[in-house]
This record gives sequence, C-alpha cells and structure tokens, in this order.
Amino acid sequence: MKAVLVINAGSSSLKFALFAIEPALAQSPALSGQIEGIGATPVLSAKDADGAHYHEPVLTSGTQTEQHRDALNHLFRWLSAHNPDLDVVAAGHRIVHGGELYSAPVTLNESVLRDLEGFIPLAPLHQPHNLRAVRAVAALIPEIPQVGCFDTAFHRTQSPLAQAFALPRAISAEGVKRYGFHGLSYDYVARQLPDVIGERANGAVLIAHLGNGASMCALREGRSVATTMGFTAVEGLMMGTRTGSLDPGVMLYLMEQKGMDAKALTNLLYKESGLLGVSGISQDMRTLLASDAREAREAVDLFCYRIAREIGSLAAAAGGLDALVFTGGIGEHAAPVRARVAKLSAWLGVAIDPDANDAHALRIDAPDSRVAVAVVPTNEEGMIAHYTLERLAH
Amino acid sequence: MKAVLVINAGSSSLKFALFAIEPALAQSPALSGQIEGIGATPVLSAKDADGAHYHEPVLTSGTQTEQHRDALNHLFRWLSAHNPDLDVVAAGHRIVHGGELYSAPVTLNESVLRDLEGFIPLAPLHQPHNLRAVRAVAALIPEIPQVGCFDTAFHRTQSPLAQAFALPRAISAEGVKRYGFHGLSYDYVARQLPDVIGERANGAVLIAHLGNGASMCALREGRSVATTMGFTAVEGLMMGTRTGSLDPGVMLYLMEQKGMDAKALTNLLYKESGLLGVSGISQDMRTLLASDAREAREAVDLFCYRIAREIGSLAAAAGGLDALVFTGGIGEHAAPVRARVAKLSAWLGVAIDPDANDAHALRIDAPDSRVAVAVVPTNEEGMIAHYTLERLAH
Repeated sequence: MKAVLVINAGSSSLKFALFAIEPALAQSPALSGQIEGIGATPVLSAKDADGAHYHEPVLTSGTQTEQHRDALNHLFRWLSAHNPDLDVVAAGHRIVHGGELYSAPVTLNESVLRDLEGFIPLAPLHQPHNLRAVRAVAALIPEIPQVGCFDTAFHRTQSPLAQAFALPRAISAEGVKRYGFHGLSYDYVARQLPDVIGERANGAVLIAHLGNGASMCALREGRSVATTMGFTAVEGLMMGTRTGSLDPGVMLYLMEQKGMDAKALTNLLYKESGLLGVSGISQDMRTLLASDAREAREAVDLFCYRIAREIGSLAAAAGGLDALVFTGGIGEHAAPVRARVAKLSAWLGVAIDPDANDAHALRIDAPDSRVAVAVVPTNEEGMIAHYTLERLAH
Repeated sequence: MKAVLVINAGSSSLKFALFAIEPALAQSPALSGQIEGIGATPVLSAKDADGAHYHEPVLTSGTQTEQHRDALNHLFRWLSAHNPDLDVVAAGHRIVHGGELYSAPVTLNESVLRDLEGFIPLAPLHQPHNLRAVRAVAALIPEIPQVGCFDTAFHRTQSPLAQAFALPRAISAEGVKRYGFHGLSYDYVARQLPDVIGERANGAVLIAHLGNGASMCALREGRSVATTMGFTAVEGLMMGTRTGSLDPGVMLYLMEQKGMDAKALTNLLYKESGLLGVSGISQDMRTLLASDAREAREAVDLFCYRIAREIGSLAAAAGGLDALVFTGGIGEHAAPVRARVAKLSAWLGVAIDPDANDAHALRIDAPDSRVAVAVVPTNEEGMIAHYTLERLAH
C-alpha cells in the first residue's frame, strides 16, 4: 500500500494518520492513532478503517529528543508490521507556525527548517515539537520527502488591518501580529462549501471551528479576511480550558495584585479557564450539556454568547453574512450549542430547522433563513495528506 | 451665585466646573478649568462662560496629599475671589469605580468612602486620586455635601454574560469582571437621544464615545447591554495611546521574550500604543488626519476598522442596529472618521449624508439609511452636576 503519513507532534504526544494514495488519495485514513505519554509511560493506540482498535506500550529512553525519535521509530515499525506492503511515499506534518513567510505548504529542507525554527518564540508550546518530529523522520527515513502544512498559512490573505494590533510599529515589525490558526480546518471546510451551499460559498461566509480549541474565520470568495485567534491560540472565543479574549488589564491586575508571573498566567489562561474554569465541572461540552448544574449552564451560555458576539464582529469584517458553517467536535455534534448561537444571531437573518439541527444534517437552515447554515465535518489530516501529495507532484 | 462644583481629580491634575443652579441647573458651566502639574509646578487655568481665560501659578507643599489639599484650597479661594457671592451648595465628584455595589450616584460619607477605597485595586491609577479629593474637600469645607458619580454605574444593567470573562469562578467572584467605563457620557447622550432620533432611542442603539480614551456602548431601551471597555480602561477600541483589546498571548510573549514586567507592560499598553504607537507620529487625531504620511493613514485606518468590528459585535449584543451615535472629541469633530466607520458599516444599513457629516450636524444619516446616525456632544460634567443636585433633593 502506497501511503502518505500525516504527523502532528506535540510535547508528549504524536498523532498520526496513514492515507492510502492509490488509486487516488483516500478521504479517510487506513489507520490513525497516537502515541501519548512520551517522556513518561508512552502508549500507542490506533484504529483502522474497519474499526479495529490497537493498544500497546512503547519503549523509549534517553533525552527528550531521543524519546521522540524512539517513539517515531516504534511507529514506523508498527505501521510496517501492520501493513507488510506499506510504502510511505511522504510524510506531511502539521506545523503550527509559518510566520509571515509561508502562506502555503512547503517541502521541508534544511533551509526551511531553519526559517521555521526562527518562529519558535512565536509558538513555544508547539513549534519546537513539530520541528523535532520532522528532524526525527529525516534521521530515521532520510529517503522520504516531508512537507510542512501550517495552521497560519490560510490567513495570509487577510488585509494588514485584520492582522494588526495597535502596538508600537517596532513591536509589530518584529512579527507581533495576528497570524490566526486552524487554517487547515478552514481550508478543508471552505473547499467543501460549494457543494453544500452553492454560490453563497463565494459570499460572506463565517466558519466556526469549535473543538477543545475554538476559533472562527470570516471568508470572502473562499479566502480568509479575519479570524478570532490572533498572535497565539488563546485569543478569541472561549474554549475548553482557555479564556479566549481577555482585557489586558486583567493580566496587569493579576501580576500586580497576585504576583503571578508568565508561567502562572500561561497556566491560568490556557489550562484553568474557559468551559472548565467557568463551570468548575468540566472542559467537555458533552458533560456540561448533560449537567443540571447552574454553573454548567452558565459556562455553556457564555460560550454561545461569545460566539454570537464574534459572529457580529466577523460579519463586519466580511461585510455581511451569507452563510454560517459549524465544524470541529462541538460544532459537528453539539446541536444545543448551534441552536443557541443561531438564536442569538437571528438579528442577522439566521434561522435553523430544529429537526435538521438535531440530526446534525449538512444543511440546517430553516426555509425562511436569509443565511445558509451548514454543519461540515472537518478533516485537517486529509487536508495535510492532500497538500503533501500536491507538493510531491511539483 | 448658588452653584454645584464638579471635580475630576487625577494623580497630578484637578479638573473642575462650576454650574449655576438658579433658576435651574445650567447646561454649561459658569467657570471651568483645571489645576495641572500638582507635585511639580502647579498652574491653574480656567475660562468663564464669556470666554475669558485665566492662568496663575498655585503654591503647594508637603506630601502628595497635602499638595492636593493645597491645590483644592487654592481653587476654592480663587473661585470665591472670582465670584464674590459664590455659594457652593455641593460638590459632585467623578469617581471611576463604583464596583458591583454602586449602580447609581451616591452621597459620599465615611462608610461609602470605605467601600470605594476597597475598589482601589480595581483602578489603582485613578480611584485613589478621586477619593483623596473627596477627603480634601471634606476637610476644607465640611459643611457641603458631596456626591460620587461613577464611570461604571451606567453599565450595571448589563446581563452577567456581557460582564463575564471566561476565567475560573474564584477569580470572577473576586470582582474580576467587565465593569465598563464612560458611563456618565453614555448616560448623558442617551438622555438626549429621544429628542434627536425619536422612537429609535428605545431600540438597538450604539454610542461611540471617541476621545483620547475611547469606548462604545450598546443600549436597548436606553440601558447599557454591552460595552467595549471591560475590567480596565485599556480593553476594547484602539485609543490615543492605548492598545485596546490585545491577544493575552502577546503579553505572555513580551514577558517571556523581552522580560517585561507589569510596570513596563502598563507603560507600553497605556502610553506608547494606539494612534501614537501605530503612527509613530501623534496620538492626536487632528494631527494624523492632516498628515500625508503613510503611517498616519495606517493608524487612522486601524482606528476606524476596529470601531467597525466592534459595531458588529455590539450589534449582536443589542440584537440589531437602529441608531449609531458619535460623541467625544473625535466623535464630535472628526468627520473623516465618522465617514469611514459609516462606510465600513454599510452592510448594516448605515449610510451618511456627506454634507451633514462635514457640518457635524446633529443628524448625519442619508435619507435612505436604515440606521439613524447622530452626532451628540457629550457633557459628563453636566451629568455629574445633574446627579449631584438630584441627590441633594433626596
């Protein structure tokens, strides 16, 4: 089986998906899974296209870099054992940050890697791990080409205004700007839209990528014109454990009144806030929707309210609203969230069909809705596989 | 002359306005001005209703508290010298923070002052100075009643959702919430609106208070439902020297990569950003509009773009848009800013009449505009004088 291997490497985890490419690129992976717990007790778990599940311990040792290489080596051996005729023709990596330089996927070589290492300060929690996996694959299987696909690239069509903070020019010139993220998801969903909403796909479209991380993107003619996540993945919508947008004065208050430093603030804003912090119960939307607790309801209400406010702001960026599209784990599966957001957006002409919404149908707008409303499952890994093959053809 | 003295005390300045109250409360002050440079070389400058200007040095000495008391003492003696028959019946103070407790003006007594001192951590740059002036007047002229009018009070009609950050409950419960500011300006303008836009004053109204500080407020039935400034006066719109909303991740980056502490960040966000930081030229909109420099244009464009984005967000909070109202120094006088904001808001049915706009007319909407557009000069001092008299009557 000829295949593209998609890799999404984090600090202690390594997600993977294997896409067959013959006769044509498969829409869904033949195998996918992850190695979690790298640095502690790593375990590989995976499932194949038939739904069979796999689970096994992974032996690693040495430095963090060596452990990640051991984990990748284990993965390659396991994949070959599982598919004796496997021929991985390329590896496609999800890389969080392409900076201002990369507005499209790129074949990874030493010169590109050095550029990308320069963006580590812009995404210190993700970029080093993404790049370490690229180097590990290059060391283990130097013969296969590798392609980098960036979460930021899709947003490089935005106007300078949409990307600007009102900071002194010298700081902005260093690269402190709104890059945006979830670009592979928006890219994938945008490509599906003409089949789902027809001509309106070229109009003013808002896509809500609502997962544990959450953001929204405004598009015109299929291109990003604005997005809620900015310089980092903590801005914008309320998320599972992240605050989203927050008065900068709150951070000054927490520094001055509580002596919090960058590490403590990072932990607070990324790990202890959002649905988890407001509910005090869970970061999981399913748990909150199933709960009778007032705190759970308040968290869900705030999550939906903040989406509705951003819909207004992004509609201003797009100059209107022709279509509203939900994707991501919550966007695809949480009908009550979609219903509340739609209700709060009635002023824009959004109206949904309750039955279609409950059924998670592809189109959920009511017949009298001025705005098309759709639920389109995202496929970031498929998008990476697509781009990786496309790069190979060049 | 019976009069109410309105006081707005800062760290090194003391603004004042004297409103005659007989036969009825005057709309504009008989005398107004400020003592600036307290702690250095204080100077009193003032003008009267006939346009005559006054300017004289002020002698102060001792501790900061003593200097402020000396300045107030000088002011009272100067006012009496200028108006031999002056009878100050009450002092009305602009006090930035009323916390969650005060949703209306209040007669200031020891118990109230103690409450308000509890809010100093919420507004450390303003609240202590506001309260010091109250205590100084009480020491100098103990017989006159004093009334506190809060910048936050007008927004206490907002839903909990509009006031919430997605922070852990414990932090929110301490009072870290979106209080909003410029409430005296919104209150004043909202009271004028029925005369300017009729029935629509009860609909979905957005007021843009654009001065050196800038914020916007969404109203329904004349009450605040949302506003752009939150816990502090740095959130929301881009301002003269303030960033407005900023990805919290940018602050973490500046802390980690540049070693900036709270003091350095406060200086950056409050003093070096906004129109000044983006243009590198000036914080003054008049200067920027008169400039041919690309940097000046970029700063003005970003200022207008950010307003347009917030108009969308606030329209979502208000459930639509029936009227858009400009006030504050920029809002009342910068026709090109109003024109650009209106153009960016055309998708909401906003259209202005260029001639009316250039003339700073009270109504500037075009005949075919779905949205009423107005320019209403604000009068925060008049609002304080009004409330101070009203409190006295109780």
